[in-house]
Amino acid sequence: MNDEIPETHPRYKSLVIRERLRDFMEKGIVVPEGLIAHGRGEAFDYIFGEASQDFALESEKAAISLLMLSKNPVITVNGNVAALSYKEIVELHNVTGIKVEINLFHRSDERIKKIAELFQREGLTEIYGIHADKEIPGLVHNRRFADGNGIYSADTVFIPLEDGDRAMSLKNMGKKVIAIDLNPFSRTSITADISIIDEITRTIKNFIKIYEELKNLNESELKEILNKFDNKKNKVDAINLICEKLRYWQTDQKPHL
Amino acid sequence: MNDEIPETHPRYKSLVIRERLRDFMEKGIVVPEGLIAHGRGEAFDYIFGEASQDFALESEKAAISLLMLSKNPVITVNGNVAALSYKEIVELHNVTGIKVEINLFHRSDERIKKIAELFQREGLTEIYGIHADKEIPGLVHNRRFADGNGIYSADTVFIPLEDGDRAMSLKNMGKKVIAIDLNPFSRTSITADISIIDEITRTIKNFIKIYEELKNLNESELKEILNKFDNKKNKVDAINLICEKLRYWQTDQKPHL
Repeated sequence: MNDEIPETHPRYKSLVIRERLRDFMEKGIVVPEGLIAHGRGEAFDYIFGEASQDFALESEKAAISLLMLSKNPVITVNGNVAALSYKEIVELHNVTGIKVEINLFHRSDERIKKIAELFQREGLTEIYGIHADKEIPGLVHNRRFADGNGIYSADTVFIPLEDGDRAMSLKNMGKKVIAIDLNPFSRTSITADISIIDEITRTIKNFIKIYEELKNLNESELKEILNKFDNKKNKVDAINLICEKLRYWQTDQKPHL
Repeated sequence: MNDEIPETHPRYKSLVIRERLRDFMEKGIVVPEGLIAHGRGEAFDYIFGEASQDFALESEKAAISLLMLSKNPVITVNGNVAALSYKEIVELHNVTGIKVEINLFHRSDERIKKIAELFQREGLTEIYGIHADKEIPGLVHNRRFADGNGIYSADTVFIPLEDGDRAMSLKNMGKKVIAIDLNPFSRTSITADISIIDEITRTIKNFIKIYEELKNLNESELKEILNKFDNKKNKVDAINLICEKLRYWQTDQKPHL
């Protein structure tokens, strides 16, 4: 993908992701606001050591259990999500059957078409949200549009990398919400039933591994995983780790970022 | 500047700054990497309440004192700095005489020309770094170039919004370094003699106010301000505030970001 950044660079993955977002902005898939949002996530991911922490893995296991228990789960995809993880999302669809719906804040037919093409090239035939015919109550901007056969009728919505008003509106419709957000204080993290505090490309890769581990469990075993999961405790663990790291860096006084 | 974001919006300033960076990227002044870097700063600024905290004001007072005591101070300007604060930097030059040098990681003659034009339109006649003829020892990338009459011969370099290797190399040349970085753990913040943990547009505006307060002080009074300033304690105060805010948000569990 990149011949300038050496794979031995300690922050190789993070730099490759930045290049990828820049490239996908040039292709008209990522918007400038998406780059700024990515930067906000980066700040938290540095502190988490750019690795999936235990609280993240716990929430990812619960998320897979919920997706497996759901009758009609949908993942909602924006520009950043598509750019960073379209291949892995198609893989996730292939193993779990989760529907894929495109939903954009900066919505244009052209951007939707380009994002749909990414998924189609990976072999995904049914993509929702292209002709979104329903509206989510309580939202005024373009993200209110939803597909009647997708998010609108879903029982569980998996919304990576968004801000929180849509998560809140979907909760108000009685849906279960799974979110990915590196910021444990965002409205999305606070609203979601399962708040995954992890980086998206790591999360989706973990999902596929975890699915392999859980795929033979029965309904009551999956429910047990969900019942044991404590979303609030998980967020507290994330916050504790942030403060622990900051205190350590403070006494250490070496450059870390 | 913007007729869509209402001034009453609680995060008005932050949203206007985002739009400004996007507009200046379209003009070829800001690079995509600059948007990501801005997002990282935003994450910290949210936590600081998007306001100049006491530790920031203390460091800004020390910075102005150091600039007034310096024989040949230079501010180094990249794309983000130019986009967000070119007018205020010209004002700062007019009141303190600080030289302005353009230095870009993603250096091209075209970008340098566009940035120089911004400053020229505000009436700045002498702009350094356009024909950078010297190299800062220890740097390999394009930012190694420096103007012999600017940064290269400066006693104090004010470097807002950069990563830290250049700050380190300038320190190794025996120069005093003032930095602006919302991240108290960045290499820039750790390296600088005065680490201003504040947002750039607020900082430069504060600078001009503080200069008005200090302009009649004599050398020994300015030195006293500098001697009383404790950069390390200041960074500890910033870190304490981050953890305090996170703990509060954690118990509060209301959406804040």
